[in-house]
Amino acid sequence: MADRDDPPNRPGSPGVVAGVSETDRVKAFSDGVFAIVITLLVLELRVPEHEPGGLLHGLLQEWPAYLAFVVSFVYVGVIWLNHHALLRLVAGMTLALNWINLAVLLGAVIVPFSTSVLAAALAPGSDDRDRRVAVVLYAVAAALMSAPWMVLFGYLRRRPELLSPGVTRRYIRSQAFRPLTGLLLYGLSGLLGWFVNPVVGLVGIIVMICYHALTSEGLREGPLGRLLGRGSAGRPAS
Amino acid sequence: MADRDDPPNRPGSPGVVAGVSETDRVKAFSDGVFAIVITLLVLELRVPEHEPGGLLHGLLQEWPAYLAFVVSFVYVGVIWLNHHALLRLVAGMTLALNWINLAVLLGAVIVPFSTSVLAAALAPGSDDRDRRVAVVLYAVAAALMSAPWMVLFGYLRRRPELLSPGVTRRYIRSQAFRPLTGLLLYGLSGLLGWFVNPVVGLVGIIVMICYHALTSEGLREGPLGRLLGRGSAGRPAS
Amino acid sequence: MADRDDPPNRPGSPGVVAGVSETDRVKAFSDGVFAIVITLLVLELRVPEHEPGGLLHGLLQEWPAYLAFVVSFVYVGVIWLNHHALLRLVAGMTLALNWINLAVLLGAVIVPFSTSVLAAALAPGSDDRDRRVAVVLYAVAAALMSAPWMVLFGYLRRRPELLSPGVTRRYIRSQAFRPLTGLLLYGLSGLLGWFVNPVVGLVGIIVMICYHALTSEGLREGPLGRLLGRGSAGRPAS
Amino acid sequence: MADRDDPPNRPGSPGVVAGVSETDRVKAFSDGVFAIVITLLVLELRVPEHEPGGLLHGLLQEWPAYLAFVVSFVYVGVIWLNHHALLRLVAGMTLALNWINLAVLLGAVIVPFSTSVLAAALAPGSDDRDRRVAVVLYAVAAALMSAPWMVLFGYLRRRPELLSPGVTRRYIRSQAFRPLTGLLLYGLSGLLGWFVNPVVGLVGIIVMICYHALTSEGLREGPLGRLLGRGSAGRPAS
Repeated sequence: MADRDDPPNRPGSPGVVAGVSETDRVKAFSDGVFAIVITLLVLELRVPEHEPGGLLHGLLQEWPAYLAFVVSFVYVGVIWLNHHALLRLVAGMTLALNWINLAVLLGAVIVPFSTSVLAAALAPGSDDRDRRVAVVLYAVAAALMSAPWMVLFGYLRRRPELLSPGVTRRYIRSQAFRPLTGLLLYGLSGLLGWFVNPVVGLVGIIVMICYHALTSEGLREGPLGRLLGRGSAGRPAS
Repeated sequence: MADRDDPPNRPGSPGVVAGVSETDRVKAFSDGVFAIVITLLVLELRVPEHEPGGLLHGLLQEWPAYLAFVVSFVYVGVIWLNHHALLRLVAGMTLALNWINLAVLLGAVIVPFSTSVLAAALAPGSDDRDRRVAVVLYAVAAALMSAPWMVLFGYLRRRPELLSPGVTRRYIRSQAFRPLTGLLLYGLSGLLGWFVNPVVGLVGIIVMICYHALTSEGLREGPLGRLLGRGSAGRPAS
Repeated sequence: MADRDDPPNRPGSPGVVAGVSETDRVKAFSDGVFAIVITLLVLELRVPEHEPGGLLHGLLQEWPAYLAFVVSFVYVGVIWLNHHALLRLVAGMTLALNWINLAVLLGAVIVPFSTSVLAAALAPGSDDRDRRVAVVLYAVAAALMSAPWMVLFGYLRRRPELLSPGVTRRYIRSQAFRPLTGLLLYGLSGLLGWFVNPVVGLVGIIVMICYHALTSEGLREGPLGRLLGRGSAGRPAS
Repeated sequence: MADRDDPPNRPGSPGVVAGVSETDRVKAFSDGVFAIVITLLVLELRVPEHEPGGLLHGLLQEWPAYLAFVVSFVYVGVIWLNHHALLRLVAGMTLALNWINLAVLLGAVIVPFSTSVLAAALAPGSDDRDRRVAVVLYAVAAALMSAPWMVLFGYLRRRPELLSPGVTRRYIRSQAFRPLTGLLLYGLSGLLGWFVNPVVGLVGIIVMICYHALTSEGLREGPLGRLLGRGSAGRPAS
C-alpha cells in the first residue's frame, strides 16, 4: 500500500531499509534545520558595548546571554536526539507525516527567538514582570512543541505499516507518555515562573530538558542504569 | 545517452536508483537551501523595543511579524514538499535541469525578504499604500516562482529518458497544471491586494499555499479523500 | 595505496563508488557551505527606510542590491556546479585534497562580503572611486578563486590513482585551462573596472560567470550545441 | 550488544559499513553545524562606514577582521577534518557518544563569537588590556574544546565494540595525546597572551591550529613526509 505511493524510490522493501529512501530526504532536511537553529543561537552572543579597557567587564555582564545560549543549545540538541530516535522507528513517510514533521521543525525554529527574549529579560537591571513574561514565553513554546509529537505517536499507532521492522505498536503507545509529560511539566514551569518566581520557572524548564535528554532514546525500564545502550524495554530486538 | 554523460558515478542503471547518484547531490544542496531559508525566517522575530515592564505589550504588538513568519514557514515547507515529490520523478540530472533547479531555489531564497517587507508593512500604524505594495510584492514573487516549474515540466516532457522508472509522460503533462494555477492565482491575489484590499490579497495567498500543500504529492482524483497515501491517479504503480 | 589509508570506510573498491565513502562527507560539507552562502545573500536585501507611503519608491531605489544579489546567486550556483562536476572525477580524498577543497570553500564564503560591498558602492549617489574599488574587489576575489582550482588540477595530474574509473589524465589536463581563463579574465575585468569604467568591469565579470556556467560540466567540443547532455569530448564513456 | 539497541537501521553488520546507519545522521548533523559555523564567520566582514571616496581606506582599516576571519576559517576547517577522521573510527553511536559529539559542536558553534571579540579588540586604536582579554578568550575557548575530545577517546577505549573494523584500542590510546597537547598549548598561548603580549598569544594559537591541521588524519611517524596519504602508523591496514 505504502509502496504503491512512491514507485520511483521504492522498487521493493529493500529500498526502504537500505538505499536512499524517502525518509532519508526528510532526515536531511530536518538535520539541516536543527543544525542551523543550534548554530544561529550564537548570533545572540555579541561583542558588548564597552569603554576602552572595559571589555572583560562587558563580557561578564553578558552572563544571561551565555546561560540562555547554553540552555537552548542543549534543548535543541535534545530535540534533535529525539527526532533522530523517532525517525528510526519510521520506514516511510506520508504527506501527513511530513506535515507533522514540519510542525516539529516549526517548534525548533522559534527557539532562537524565545532564547533572545529570555536573554534580554534576564539582563542586569531588567524588570521583574518582563522576566516572568520571558520565562512563560519560553515554557509555552516548549510545551506547544509537545503537541506535534503527541499527534505523531497517535498517527503512527493508526498506521503500523509505516513502522520499521521490529517496532511494535505497544512500543509506540508507551512512547506517547513522553510528550504528554513535556506538555504538562513545561506548562507547570510556565505557571511557576509567572505566579511564583521566574527563576523557579527557569529551573523547571532546565529539569525538563534534562529529563528529555536522558530519555531521548525512548523510555526504558531503569533508564539511568541503561543509559549507555544496554537495555531495550518494549523495543524488541530484531 | 544520459549515461554517457557521467561515466564516473553511473556505471549502470543501478547507480541511478540505489547509490550516491547525481540526483542525490542536487537533493542535498537543495535541502540545505530550503532548510536555511525556513530557519532564517526566525531572524525576523526580534525582541521588541520596550519600556521596563512593557515586554508583553511589545511582544503582542509584533503580531504581524508572527503572522508573516507562519505564512512563510508553511510556504517554504510547501515548496520543499513539492520539490521533494518532483525529484522522485527524475532519475538523472542534466546541466539544464540544474539551472532550472537553481531558478526554483532563487525563488525560495527571496522568501525571507518578501516576508520581512510584509511584516514591516502590516505593523500597527503603517500606511495603506505600503500594505498594498507589500502584498503585491509577496504575490508577484510567489507567482514568478511558478515559472521555473512550468519550464521544468515542459523540459521533462521532451526528455522522458530522464524520468524515474514507472513515471509516464502523461503523468508529467498532468502535473504541469499546478504551476500554471499558481502563476494565475498568485497573480490574481496580487491584483486583489492592490485594487481591492491588501487583506483580501493576503487571504488569496494563504488559500493558494494551502492548495499547493494539499496537492504537493501530485494531483490525484479526489485529492482530499486520498491525502494520506492511498490513491495514485496518473502515476502508475511500479 | 590510497586504500591503505582509510581501512574503516573502504573495505575495497566498491566502497569508493557505491557506499558512503570519504568523498561523500566532503560533498555533504561542501554542499552545506554552498547552500548557506547562496542563501545568506538574501540578508543583503532589507526593508528600505521609507516615509509612510514611500515603500514602493524605497524598494525601487534598492535596485543595485537586487542586481548584486542575482549576479552573486548565479556566481555561487556556478561554483557549486563546477564543484559538483569536479568531485565526480575524484574517487578518494587525501589531506591535501581536503585543504585544497577548503581553499575553494574560502573563496565561496567571502562572496556575500564582496556582494554587499558592491551593492553599497552601486547605490544611487555613491562615489565613482568607491564603485571602482568595489568592482575591483569583486573581480580580484573571483580571480583568486581560480588559484585553488589550478592547484587542484595539478595535484590530480600527479595522483591519477585518486581519479574515478574512466577519467583520464588527459581529461584532467584539458580542464586546467578553465581556471587559468578565470584567473586571467576576472583579473582583466578588474583592470577594466579600475582604469576604464566600473560598469565595463562589471559586464566583464558577468560574462565570465556565464562562461563558467556554460562550461561547468567540463570543456567540450562545440559546447553550446551539446549543452543538454549529448557530447562528452575528452571524458571517455565508461 | 550495540546491535540490539537499534534494530531498525542495523539488520546486521553490513548496515554499519555500507548503508545509511546511525553514524550517518550524526555526520550529516555535524557537517551541517560545521558548514554553518564556517560560513557565518563572513557575517563579521561588513561594509565599513566611510566618507564618499573613502571605501578603499575603510576596507584596509578592517584588516583585523580579515585576519580573525581567516584564522577562524582555518580553525573550523581543522575541527571539521579532525571530526571527519574521528567518525571514521566509530561504527555505531550511543547516547553518551551523541552527547560528547554535541559538546564538540558546542565548542565549534562559539567560534564566531570569540572571533568577533578578537576582531573588535584588534581594531586600530583599541585598548591593550582589551586585546589581552580577547586573545585569552579565544585561547580558553580553544583549550576547552579539547575536553570533549579527551572524554571521547577515554570512552572509546572502554567501548572497543563501537570501533570500526581494523581500528585497535592501541591506536585510540595513541590519539588521546593530541587533545591533551591542545589543552596544554592553547592554555599556554592564553597565558602568554595575558602576561607577555597579546600578539605572542595569537601566534601561539595560530601555531597550534597548524599543528592540528597537519595531524588531522591522526598522529603518524614522520608526519610531514607522510602527509599526503602514504604512511599509517598505529592504524593497521585492513
